[in-house]
Amino acid sequence: MIIGLLKEPSGENRVALLPENVKTLIALNVELIVESQAGTAAFTTDSEFEKAGAKIGQRRDVLSADLVLGINPPTDSELEDLKAGQVLMSVFQPLSNKQLVEKLMSLQFTSFSMDNVPRTTRAQSMDVLSSMATVAGYKAVLLAASNSPRFFPMFMTAAGSIIPSKVLVLGAGVAGLQAIATARRLGAVVEAFDVRTAAEEEVKSLGAKFVKVEGATDDKSAGGYAVEQSEEYKAKQQALIQEHAAKANIIICTAQIPGRKAPVLITQETVQNMAEGSVIVDLAASTGGNCELTENDRVVQKHGVTIIGNSNLASTMPLDASKMYGKNMVNFLKLLIDAEGNLNLNWEDDILANTCVTHAGEVMSPRVKNILFQTETA
Amino acid sequence: MIIGLLKEPSGENRVALLPENVKTLIALNVELIVESQAGTAAFTTDSEFEKAGAKIGQRRDVLSADLVLGINPPTDSELEDLKAGQVLMSVFQPLSNKQLVEKLMSLQFTSFSMDNVPRTTRAQSMDVLSSMATVAGYKAVLLAASNSPRFFPMFMTAAGSIIPSKVLVLGAGVAGLQAIATARRLGAVVEAFDVRTAAEEEVKSLGAKFVKVEGATDDKSAGGYAVEQSEEYKAKQQALIQEHAAKANIIICTAQIPGRKAPVLITQETVQNMAEGSVIVDLAASTGGNCELTENDRVVQKHGVTIIGNSNLASTMPLDASKMYGKNMVNFLKLLIDAEGNLNLNWEDDILANTCVTHAGEVMSPRVKNILFQTETA
Repeated sequence: MIIGLLKEPSGENRVALLPENVKTLIALNVELIVESQAGTAAFTTDSEFEKAGAKIGQRRDVLSADLVLGINPPTDSELEDLKAGQVLMSVFQPLSNKQLVEKLMSLQFTSFSMDNVPRTTRAQSMDVLSSMATVAGYKAVLLAASNSPRFFPMFMTAAGSIIPSKVLVLGAGVAGLQAIATARRLGAVVEAFDVRTAAEEEVKSLGAKFVKVEGATDDKSAGGYAVEQSEEYKAKQQALIQEHAAKANIIICTAQIPGRKAPVLITQETVQNMAEGSVIVDLAASTGGNCELTENDRVVQKHGVTIIGNSNLASTMPLDASKMYGKNMVNFLKLLIDAEGNLNLNWEDDILANTCVTHAGEVMSPRVKNILFQTETA
Repeated sequence: MIIGLLKEPSGENRVALLPENVKTLIALNVELIVESQAGTAAFTTDSEFEKAGAKIGQRRDVLSADLVLGINPPTDSELEDLKAGQVLMSVFQPLSNKQLVEKLMSLQFTSFSMDNVPRTTRAQSMDVLSSMATVAGYKAVLLAASNSPRFFPMFMTAAGSIIPSKVLVLGAGVAGLQAIATARRLGAVVEAFDVRTAAEEEVKSLGAKFVKVEGATDDKSAGGYAVEQSEEYKAKQQALIQEHAAKANIIICTAQIPGRKAPVLITQETVQNMAEGSVIVDLAASTGGNCELTENDRVVQKHGVTIIGNSNLASTMPLDASKMYGKNMVNFLKLLIDAEGNLNLNWEDDILANTCVTHAGEVMSPRVKNILFQTETA
């Protein structure tokens, strides 16, 4: 089998495989063709890919491989030029791209969306959402600290005492927990909020305080994701968050619900009540933001508060983010490659079956089918 | 006595006193007049200064106070409009501003330069160089981490292991030691270099490795500052730094010699040997930089390495930097104010005498006199 590695569109600095991953794959008897300059923005040269055993080619060569691999999928017009039966591996975000899913179906591609990997223990090593959230949570805190007019740590100096910054983290998933850990490393006092009661223990184990709203809906069937809450709960939550936000110097927003608009947790009024010079980093920016005043991919100043809206911070740390993404890809590819290096799709494998969006004209992922097509099949 | 607080020129976000400092000074029976908008860039309003007991005034009112206080001195033309005998407190950088010193002499001002506070134990609480270096060292590491394509800390994740970043700190004074501490907090592996052998123990106590060049000149009479080194030493130093720099992901440059061009420790060749994606933050930028390719007040990419030249990082953390600066000023002012709140210059006080640049037409600071006027008095 030939695997083609795409160069990402401009603005995305990561690359889906690094030379170290290419080496591993070649040992599995597959051939690799890498689009010229694919690694440039991740500080990796064509010759490093060549040394690892890949061929360097043009985009059309990569697109004609048996399996076409990238973080961003090929463009719509490129998809139309591909052959039925080709395998595509990217982050398709199927839950918010129904049209694309229908196109993948009608063009008869076998498509795997890496944001669709189930959140099971065995799949952890392939979970790009988790690995990229680790990068984003870390980087969010660095950006917050870099944009803050205050220190994070406490200082007892000859020039008086500096009190530590107060950081509020909204959403204690992978990104939120990493944000907590990083803010704690830097010496801040941290509070965190999550609708999932299971988060309390994890938050506390990192040395942060858990902000608890009573009466949350905790849907165990959601596979560890957050679910939509009642109006009464939302009102209580709003009041409590407003209270804690007003005392925070830094807010890191990570609360997202897959396939839906992000919950608004920080209103304009909350921002007005914050001290001037406070900083909000909103990782939910691309789905509307947890803060009402967030603008996606922009840094804005509102009421003296700096609001950074960025849902793709992983791209700003392209070396280690690509390293983790590439390792996730290799672990996943191992499920699909037989001893001779050929494609072998075992539909009994729950990870493969759940990650697959479309195959032979059908939607395969039960989750995608339920959420996107449930009204039509009802 | 009336103390006038200047608004800093644009580009400088700090303010020399915060409302909390104003309160302390008013308790010492002095009056305060604050230039309108003086605190705006440090997230502090006129009304907060008023609440602390200050009057808000125009610049000309502030300039007519008995003691005129700022971080940056008044402009040349403003100085010419002041009255002989007025007291000025700013950072004049007398060692690199001979013309300004001569002007302060001829206009008969009593001028105190806060970068001239002696480095004695009793003067520590007034030492703005130390407090601002604390800010700069911390912020330098945040900027380096924010601009690096890699994590600082080690990670053992389901997506493989991430090795910690290697940070090299050049110069282990206050800024360097704070950079070491911050990089260690973030989980990096840190090495540090300094010509002063006394630095070794401090570096090691922060968990960093000391890079030792044998044969350094250690001038005890320099009061803890670094001194110029022999050509032989410089060649050995160059080779060793080159070797360690090539392995570093991050270099923080803090090596400065008062009143002289900063030593060049990182040559173009060294930068070429560094891995792509590495980051250099050069705090010595305003005096030429420790890196040959540094451009002052700019971020440049050279040979795949990001080089950030900034000697005024304290201005980017204006709240806590102003807090520390203000506390330093209050501690110093206490030496000059008698119980009735009047100016009382006690020339027997070594801190006062050493910090004073000019008084009654004479240069007072022995250090300034020696370094700037030694050739003429010889």
